[in-house]
Amino acid sequence: MTNTRADLDDAINNKLNTILNEVLQDILDYEDKQELNDFSKKLMAELYIQLKKFIPPVIDIIQVGSTARNTNLKNDYDIDIFVRFEKGTDKEILKNSILECGEKTIRKLGGKCWVEYAEHPYLSAKVDKYDIDIVPCYKLEWGDKIISAVDRTPLHNEFLINKLNTKDNIKLIQDIKLLKKFLKGLGIYGSDLKTKGFSGYLCELLVIYYGGFINVLKECQYWNLGQKIILSDIYKIHNLKENYEFTELPNQPLIVYDPTDINRNVAAALGTENFCKFIYYSGLFLKNPSKDYFYDYDMKVAKNINNRDKGELLTLVINRPKDIVEDVIYPQMEKLQNSINNLLEKHDFKYIRYGNYADENHCYLSWEFTVYRLPNVDVKVGPPAYYRNRAYQFAEKHDKCFISGCNICAFVERKYKTIYELFEDIILNKLKNKITNTKYVSPENAKITNTFKEKYKNI
Amino acid sequence: MTNTRADLDDAINNKLNTILNEVLQDILDYEDKQELNDFSKKLMAELYIQLKKFIPPVIDIIQVGSTARNTNLKNDYDIDIFVRFEKGTDKEILKNSILECGEKTIRKLGGKCWVEYAEHPYLSAKVDKYDIDIVPCYKLEWGDKIISAVDRTPLHNEFLINKLNTKDNIKLIQDIKLLKKFLKGLGIYGSDLKTKGFSGYLCELLVIYYGGFINVLKECQYWNLGQKIILSDIYKIHNLKENYEFTELPNQPLIVYDPTDINRNVAAALGTENFCKFIYYSGLFLKNPSKDYFYDYDMKVAKNINNRDKGELLTLVINRPKDIVEDVIYPQMEKLQNSINNLLEKHDFKYIRYGNYADENHCYLSWEFTVYRLPNVDVKVGPPAYYRNRAYQFAEKHDKCFISGCNICAFVERKYKTIYELFEDIILNKLKNKITNTKYVSPENAKITNTFKEKYKNI
Repeated sequence: MTNTRADLDDAINNKLNTILNEVLQDILDYEDKQELNDFSKKLMAELYIQLKKFIPPVIDIIQVGSTARNTNLKNDYDIDIFVRFEKGTDKEILKNSILECGEKTIRKLGGKCWVEYAEHPYLSAKVDKYDIDIVPCYKLEWGDKIISAVDRTPLHNEFLINKLNTKDNIKLIQDIKLLKKFLKGLGIYGSDLKTKGFSGYLCELLVIYYGGFINVLKECQYWNLGQKIILSDIYKIHNLKENYEFTELPNQPLIVYDPTDINRNVAAALGTENFCKFIYYSGLFLKNPSKDYFYDYDMKVAKNINNRDKGELLTLVINRPKDIVEDVIYPQMEKLQNSINNLLEKHDFKYIRYGNYADENHCYLSWEFTVYRLPNVDVKVGPPAYYRNRAYQFAEKHDKCFISGCNICAFVERKYKTIYELFEDIILNKLKNKITNTKYVSPENAKITNTFKEKYKNI
Repeated sequence: MTNTRADLDDAINNKLNTILNEVLQDILDYEDKQELNDFSKKLMAELYIQLKKFIPPVIDIIQVGSTARNTNLKNDYDIDIFVRFEKGTDKEILKNSILECGEKTIRKLGGKCWVEYAEHPYLSAKVDKYDIDIVPCYKLEWGDKIISAVDRTPLHNEFLINKLNTKDNIKLIQDIKLLKKFLKGLGIYGSDLKTKGFSGYLCELLVIYYGGFINVLKECQYWNLGQKIILSDIYKIHNLKENYEFTELPNQPLIVYDPTDINRNVAAALGTENFCKFIYYSGLFLKNPSKDYFYDYDMKVAKNINNRDKGELLTLVINRPKDIVEDVIYPQMEKLQNSINNLLEKHDFKYIRYGNYADENHCYLSWEFTVYRLPNVDVKVGPPAYYRNRAYQFAEKHDKCFISGCNICAFVERKYKTIYELFEDIILNKLKNKITNTKYVSPENAKITNTFKEKYKNI
């Protein structure tokens, strides 16, 4: 007896369902949930009492973010409270009222708090296991022009609450959690500048648009670079005709028009490599489902591919200045490493991979080299020999000239015969004119080690 | 007292004249000349007696080539005799009469002879120090369509004899010799496939066109790639209007329309590198004249540039089959070396120069490497990850896959970790499908040495 195609599909579907149910057991959090809801209600009530003492331009206090919509993963205790003021309220009033009333509220609840800065200041706090942000913003109506980036957040929340408050509610919410967990497993969950992956809001929109987790995985198999996604709600909300031509947004692998702001791409942070990773591993998962993908899959891949003979490893260990956040450090590490890469190429060294990673105290820029030492000879290619004057100038500067093809060339001694000579000059700051100046990540006085600092500590 | 610009120019001109006179002493051959003329007259007279015995379709017997026009360099004892038949004469008659009568003539003069093959067979001979060619051809009138390539030669001769038989005769002839000697010094005299330089005929046309040796050197400073030269005689000879549009000849660095055949480029054999060398060293010579350029200058350059630290040297020593001429061996060496170069690049090895050279018994293909050993790891780049099926096929074949940029990639073991491993496979014939098949220059069973076989024995 042989399996028919339908049997096989059934077998895969059964396996898939088993896996998804098992994963759900790990990420659902019924007990935590009630506790968190109770706490946030208490928090908002107390905050309201404090704010009432002010001449009240405050319209309302709302909870937003994934914990408000129950789309958060287990062990996510982020509570985002937005205090909405009337449009036109003085910015100083927004700021001062939140800082003062927020602080009183948190103190009353027995926690500690501090001021953080995004586009505008807001209050961050820790009470027990809860990470709380209290953010002031203006209350906007649908279609209003955004005043500050945070003004959009309550609209995101409103849109999602409406979409998820249907009879499919539970299924959709579970599927959003599965997608987040799947992306987390692949190491591409998060729209921060280190991860360049999928934001939580993007996950929620994708599951709503395609109608479920498995559908997202199936449909992304047909995505192309520059894929555009427009939710049908957008037409209703913004009162657009069917043939409305949307603004061309900047070139990105995935363009998801934000229902709350049609000039914004929700997936703007997503890098091309992560876009491709998502498509590839989604397909692989559908072909051969496994729980593996949901749990540190990126670490498993890294462990497997690095179990092999290595080239010459080198890591630059740079002291990390205090209090500089990841979203500043990571782009600067990348810029610095790219400019060192240009220098390496110019001096004929070759690497098969490079990467960067930061922990609390250090930044690590790592390379694996295939060409790391060279003989003491190089060919310098000069101008075409028939550009007489330039060619003669070249010949005056170089002793060992010859004509090759159309150009005057010269054998010269090699400046850097090993990568170590080059990196020594980098950390002695002798090449600072040839390296991008990055404010917080400077290679001066860095240490050189014979390792490759993998992103994951267990590799 | 300071030198004025005019003083300096005068100083250079005086130096130039002294040098040219000294070089001329080395290359003029008044004594040899008379002897050679006497001998070639005797040779032609005897040949005429032999040929008269045939039913005589022979129209005349003429001496051609540089010795006939006195534009040869000293110690050049080539005598080229062309026997011209009426158009329409059977080819067999041309061939048989020359072979038979030529042999009788040479035997009578006490020499030895043999048959050579170009487009058609001809007789080569050695009598004392003289190298003789006796070539049958048809007598063409100006403008007639060429039947065989050799039919052009008597017309070349006729054209040049007319041009050089003027009052400037001696000066022009001396200047042709100086140009030939200068080019010989640079290693770019000869239109054979090894040298890819300037033919004797091309030298004669250039000196006639520009009116002298120094003028050629000065005027070539204004040449561009694809430079076209049309002698004014061409318009007269072929009865062309001033605005006549010449056929576009194949793309070459220098295009000199042949006065005897306006569809032929006299400089067709000249390579781009040699074109550039000529311009560059001509300019250098004019700036700072020196006898050095006329005497093995290329060897001096090679000696100077190779007095330095070296990369890893490797030469493939291949047995040269007997009786295969340079014009066959050199293009085949080049083809073979180019295909090995592709293989080297494919396997990430890098060289800063390569060259080939043949002596009587061996062909030598040489390289100087900067990258000649590599770690046992390589990255294989597969198809874009979003081409699902191709990407999965790739992943099935490779164990250590990852996504980089848009592509699926894999770490693989390196096939060749040193150039020696690669060259071993070449000489064991394991890579014959990846190497151009060259009939007479086969790397199978070649020897590998740790040297670079320079073109010149003293380096």
